[in-house]
Amino acid sequence: MSDPVLLISGAAFTDEERARLEASMPFAFVSGPPDMAALEEGTRKSIRAIAFKGHHALTGAEMDLFPSLGVIANYGVGYDAIDIAAATARGIKVTNTPDVLNDDVADLAVAMLIAQCRNMVAGDALVRSGRWSAGESFPLNRQMSGSTVGIVGLGRIGREIANRLAAFKCEIHYTSRSEKETPGWTYHSSPVEMAKAVDVLVVALVGGKETEGHVSRQVIDALGPRGIVINISRGSTIDEGALLDALEEGRIAGAGLDVFLNEPKVDPRFLKLDNVHLQPHQGSGSVETRRRMAKLQLANIEAFLAGEPLQTPVN
Amino acid sequence: MSDPVLLISGAAFTDEERARLEASMPFAFVSGPPDMAALEEGTRKSIRAIAFKGHHALTGAEMDLFPSLGVIANYGVGYDAIDIAAATARGIKVTNTPDVLNDDVADLAVAMLIAQCRNMVAGDALVRSGRWSAGESFPLNRQMSGSTVGIVGLGRIGREIANRLAAFKCEIHYTSRSEKETPGWTYHSSPVEMAKAVDVLVVALVGGKETEGHVSRQVIDALGPRGIVINISRGSTIDEGALLDALEEGRIAGAGLDVFLNEPKVDPRFLKLDNVHLQPHQGSGSVETRRRMAKLQLANIEAFLAGEPLQTPVN
Repeated sequence: MSDPVLLISGAAFTDEERARLEASMPFAFVSGPPDMAALEEGTRKSIRAIAFKGHHALTGAEMDLFPSLGVIANYGVGYDAIDIAAATARGIKVTNTPDVLNDDVADLAVAMLIAQCRNMVAGDALVRSGRWSAGESFPLNRQMSGSTVGIVGLGRIGREIANRLAAFKCEIHYTSRSEKETPGWTYHSSPVEMAKAVDVLVVALVGGKETEGHVSRQVIDALGPRGIVINISRGSTIDEGALLDALEEGRIAGAGLDVFLNEPKVDPRFLKLDNVHLQPHQGSGSVETRRRMAKLQLANIEAFLAGEPLQTPVN
Repeated sequence: MSDPVLLISGAAFTDEERARLEASMPFAFVSGPPDMAALEEGTRKSIRAIAFKGHHALTGAEMDLFPSLGVIANYGVGYDAIDIAAATARGIKVTNTPDVLNDDVADLAVAMLIAQCRNMVAGDALVRSGRWSAGESFPLNRQMSGSTVGIVGLGRIGREIANRLAAFKCEIHYTSRSEKETPGWTYHSSPVEMAKAVDVLVVALVGGKETEGHVSRQVIDALGPRGIVINISRGSTIDEGALLDALEEGRIAGAGLDVFLNEPKVDPRFLKLDNVHLQPHQGSGSVETRRRMAKLQLANIEAFLAGEPLQTPVN
């Protein structure tokens, strides 16, 4: 076998994904960044591309292990695990897999909002347990259509969510670095001001340092007792302690969360709440979308090695 | 107290609904049609209106107990429990509560479809049980956006569902008594032909004898292994035995059901399936919508008694 050109980094790759990458070119494999230093020097010297999947930090120290490294292709739209500044300083390109997952993530955001309003997990449990058949009734719940919704971060995913919610006759508000062209949606420069104006916040920010705690205690407090928080972005974008306090004290109505600080180690306080809908970071988790993401990741690596333009460069 | 003008019929009325009706005019109360014959003759003679809630049959025999009866105001859009022909033959008007519940029912239909595709009840359970925190992973599932969907019955609710699904980039097909004006949706005169063309069937028919078993064994067989059935209409509109057979044998992919034959006595075969999402007939079950339904029911009764046009007559 020839010297490996590709380092596959990520215990999280599925068998199908691993097989596709392994068939593409000579490769080596590690579970994640902590195992990179233990690779043989010959292997490290021949690696030109990393196919990366996971949330463990990939820093300049790891990049320096690979003198021929030219591209880090991230699996996923969020690349907050990768030190982009360090990559750029070393002339290393980083790519991600945007857009192909927008629909799935937006679907889950909308469905978590309806599931939370209509108490759907409890509804399924009432029927499935036989308690409904035995005569137990189901409490009335809350209408979703017509809600006033604030999208925190009107990027590509935020816009997909807003387009869907508009079809549910929701009044759309949004925050963003600058006002955008929209079909009459209401722009707010301040998330606190938007939280005062809406019943539902849907967080669709990018991750990373700049957005850490962007949905702050003040924003959550401004939402009020009818407030629902939906998060499909990163756990880091919300002050999670403030959110838990508000949920426990009933100062907001509920939440639908696909992402958490320190996931998958979810703060146990969440597990005791009956006013939250919880998902295991499965926003992009359909077979169809994950296959598109894997193919786009590999296409970026192949483009780099062929000297062609990258499909979805980050830096 | 004056002689009762209004008969409130339905153990299912909530306290708020009962209080509103009772405050409106002199009334009597029964749990349902079987108790009507036991009312005193004086009471029966003075009753001019029935506020009806429930699924127990209300036939000509019961109507004949009330010689002054002029209107039966049903709580709900579906009035299949009431013998309309018998009412019409006696000069009794029937009203229902259409439109005010369309949004809620459409919301639930869309959310059941996403919940089924994305396996959301299992996702919530994985997080909530602590198994995700402990390292268990969640299987990939199925994209909803972009599905090819057939709406069985493009009435007011069917159209609300289609409008929402169009925002999820679904290709919309429909059956209906006749072709309708749509934004380019595909009409089929035969439900079997439509089932061959789509992945998802959403049943939005009216109930009653004419639509009994409309989604037949042939329709379900035509749907194929990627097929998902969503029903927010009445349990009677689907051949439930055929649906159960197909679900148990994996000949279709799944179902999301808010309604059942003989509900709330759900066929126990459903409770063993892991490819169904189940809801306790809560389509219109938000506080906001139920209040609108209750007010419309009373408004119809008050209009009748004032000799004014009915707001939402059925016959």
